[in-house]
Amino acid sequence: MHSVGEIFFWELCGTALLTLMGCGVVANVTLNKSLGVGGGWLLVNFGWGFAVFTGASVAAPSGAHINPAVTIGLAVYGDLPWAEVPIYFIAQLLGGTLGAIVCWAAYKLQFDTHDDPANTRGIFCTGPTVPNAPWNLITEIIGTFVLVLWIITNPSATAGENGVPDFGNSALGYAAVAFVVIGIGNSLGGPTGYAINPARDLGPRIAYAILPIRGKGSAEWGYSWVPVVGPLLGGALAAFVALALPAAS
Amino acid sequence: MHSVGEIFFWELCGTALLTLMGCGVVANVTLNKSLGVGGGWLLVNFGWGFAVFTGASVAAPSGAHINPAVTIGLAVYGDLPWAEVPIYFIAQLLGGTLGAIVCWAAYKLQFDTHDDPANTRGIFCTGPTVPNAPWNLITEIIGTFVLVLWIITNPSATAGENGVPDFGNSALGYAAVAFVVIGIGNSLGGPTGYAINPARDLGPRIAYAILPIRGKGSAEWGYSWVPVVGPLLGGALAAFVALALPAAS
Amino acid sequence: MHSVGEIFFWELCGTALLTLMGCGVVANVTLNKSLGVGGGWLLVNFGWGFAVFTGASVAAPSGAHINPAVTIGLAVYGDLPWAEVPIYFIAQLLGGTLGAIVCWAAYKLQFDTHDDPANTRGIFCTGPTVPNAPWNLITEIIGTFVLVLWIITNPSATAGENGVPDFGNSALGYAAVAFVVIGIGNSLGGPTGYAINPARDLGPRIAYAILPIRGKGSAEWGYSWVPVVGPLLGGALAAFVALALPAAS
Amino acid sequence: MHSVGEIFFWELCGTALLTLMGCGVVANVTLNKSLGVGGGWLLVNFGWGFAVFTGASVAAPSGAHINPAVTIGLAVYGDLPWAEVPIYFIAQLLGGTLGAIVCWAAYKLQFDTHDDPANTRGIFCTGPTVPNAPWNLITEIIGTFVLVLWIITNPSATAGENGVPDFGNSALGYAAVAFVVIGIGNSLGGPTGYAINPARDLGPRIAYAILPIRGKGSAEWGYSWVPVVGPLLGGALAAFVALALPAAS
Repeated sequence: MHSVGEIFFWELCGTALLTLMGCGVVANVTLNKSLGVGGGWLLVNFGWGFAVFTGASVAAPSGAHINPAVTIGLAVYGDLPWAEVPIYFIAQLLGGTLGAIVCWAAYKLQFDTHDDPANTRGIFCTGPTVPNAPWNLITEIIGTFVLVLWIITNPSATAGENGVPDFGNSALGYAAVAFVVIGIGNSLGGPTGYAINPARDLGPRIAYAILPIRGKGSAEWGYSWVPVVGPLLGGALAAFVALALPAAS
Repeated sequence: MHSVGEIFFWELCGTALLTLMGCGVVANVTLNKSLGVGGGWLLVNFGWGFAVFTGASVAAPSGAHINPAVTIGLAVYGDLPWAEVPIYFIAQLLGGTLGAIVCWAAYKLQFDTHDDPANTRGIFCTGPTVPNAPWNLITEIIGTFVLVLWIITNPSATAGENGVPDFGNSALGYAAVAFVVIGIGNSLGGPTGYAINPARDLGPRIAYAILPIRGKGSAEWGYSWVPVVGPLLGGALAAFVALALPAAS
Repeated sequence: MHSVGEIFFWELCGTALLTLMGCGVVANVTLNKSLGVGGGWLLVNFGWGFAVFTGASVAAPSGAHINPAVTIGLAVYGDLPWAEVPIYFIAQLLGGTLGAIVCWAAYKLQFDTHDDPANTRGIFCTGPTVPNAPWNLITEIIGTFVLVLWIITNPSATAGENGVPDFGNSALGYAAVAFVVIGIGNSLGGPTGYAINPARDLGPRIAYAILPIRGKGSAEWGYSWVPVVGPLLGGALAAFVALALPAAS
Repeated sequence: MHSVGEIFFWELCGTALLTLMGCGVVANVTLNKSLGVGGGWLLVNFGWGFAVFTGASVAAPSGAHINPAVTIGLAVYGDLPWAEVPIYFIAQLLGGTLGAIVCWAAYKLQFDTHDDPANTRGIFCTGPTVPNAPWNLITEIIGTFVLVLWIITNPSATAGENGVPDFGNSALGYAAVAFVVIGIGNSLGGPTGYAINPARDLGPRIAYAILPIRGKGSAEWGYSWVPVVGPLLGGALAAFVALALPAAS
């Protein structure tokens, strides 16, 4: 059992690092006065993957969820008390918003000099290449299902209740989660930009809505429920499937 | 000794994850309404490599074969009872087909809006850049030989008979297999698209033949035996070579 | 406690490897008679990341700082005696200068045949895409904050006082630090080229100023304080934040 | 002490895998009927790096040198009996030649259909972008110095005399060597194509000279001594520097 303070501060810190670095890589490939502009999809995926690596290894004391879909999956599977779930959710959403704000500060000059400022929403939150809510939802469910099924069947990927990650005390172990996330981005990120994490999408969307970004466009609130509901459904579905599979002997 | 249920469900699950993510990355670089379109060969290889990583670490309870060429190699080498081989094969083929079907669902909108729908077979299964069955077969034999020789000489890469992976219980260990697969794709995937796994090729080919994909082309059944026979021969050949090499003292 | 000689020689050696390889990758993508010319931002980041990996694993006997911002962060946090700090700083700056000189020797012919010789400063040291000292400073503070917060909260990433790295004696452990650095480059390197290390920037800037490089341009001394002061502030800030966070139970 | 047979067969096997996959990635990016054509420098480096990973982890029983520069470095440093050196050299050269021959078989159809057949030497062996023997030699010395200094100061990277790799029995440990090689390619490979291994260059050059490759060009024997002498000098130099550095306490 973690204390409320442990959960709150470490999840907030880990999720803030996640969106600081994750939104950062999209800023880097998007903003035309940035050194990584036009850097390509593999760069974006290594950016998000190593953002997960950094955030998760810092957030080890709280179990390194940094994603409400992971939290709900572990709760459904029975590895997390339901009473802790709201604390995780609040910390993750606050952290996701905070990280995106710091990302904007890091790229302030590039936002100010970007040549298409109305089109910067994609730096913060996801959107579909072909809008169609039911199918977009299915894509997000599938991507998150892969992530959470992997995490549940590889329990060393989260720190568990005792707050000690199970990788021989080496932070390198969290690279396994990063490789899965890079894999999901490579493979299943094409249609919707792979939110697969409500806090990663909703937090930065809130930041985009409130920040004084020069010439910014719409935050696209009409789509915003898809990358929240889809990942939560995908995480719960993964837990149900994991419960149905035969236990490893 | 694994139970039949363990082998069947975990191999099916692992191979489905393999083709879901593997076919997914090719969909991502191929379909023109996808964010990764034109992403390049290194993206494709990291996609397949981390698909192997995800599928293999989930399938640890059944030994993480997810490839009939690995199964036959281990049987020839003497590390797997021949009676288990048909169970592995059936589960792998069913999983390979299932994963490709889910991949199509994830990319449904992108298939529906693709501008060259007759040319989508390559998302599902491999084909040669220069058709010539004997030489295409040799290329597939060589690529699979490398994979299976590596697996046999690095026994910690499979979970072994006791169903427990030998990496200090860390899922990260399967990254070693992923690096070998990325390496084979980088280096030996150029001529035939590196099936190196009959279930990865035949399963998705069946899916392509039966799915209602808008404007789809031929499944190219005439070539389909090469990526089945080549990998099986390559896996068996690796086992024979491994048996002939001097044992490590 | 390390001896002065241990600190001096291993830090010098590790930091020299860092700037030899780090400046090398920028030379490779910049100089038009080089095989990696135009290789892109992901290549640059893997170049610097594996430069950190190589330098840090060689410098394990001195704790593998190879960066004054790491040294100051550990000192503020209380994990390093302040009396050792100047020895680290001097060795790191000398090493950073030496590595850049050797890099120039490796690329001597490419410098001599480059078609835009006045524009080679970026091979050695960083510069902003949009010059504005306060915001450039903030970007460097944020990037270094991420690095040092990660290192402090993952103590196995440095060798600690006993000079023995804590990764099961495997050099692979330092890959964790490399992944964080690659992540920072991917995500936060766009505005200023991510010095995040005073020795990595000032050392090669000195080398650029003194080397007989054909047709070289200005060393841009007016900007040189930003990539020194920013990382030192970022490293100290990370230590203060780490001291304020609740301890892992 | 290894037996002669162990050294011979495992080094031959490991070095053959190295050049099979290493030459393979260059074939893949060079030959215009190959799926990876034009794939870029990062793809080439990941190709060679994972070739080293595959070859070294298979060659663990003989210490995983697969490179005469490593062998000579370990002999000078005192970690290998000089009497074993010739056995290593012969096996590495034969393996390097054999692997390149198998690579040609894998790409036979692509060689036969390539549109610039006189220009295929670079698939097999290295050459300078700016020919100048003394400076080319210095570049090869520097790159190999980094590799061998890293190996000597990280003894877990080779299996040592007892033939058991020191990574908790996980093949993943050899990824550390791969990351260093990818780093050297990224950073120091631009001027000469980073042979950093006499067997990797001379073996495939012999293969290029004797194979019936359609329309092949010159094997450039005039340059062939540079990628042999440079790496041997670099490896020996690294051993001398390592002997001079203070031992880790």
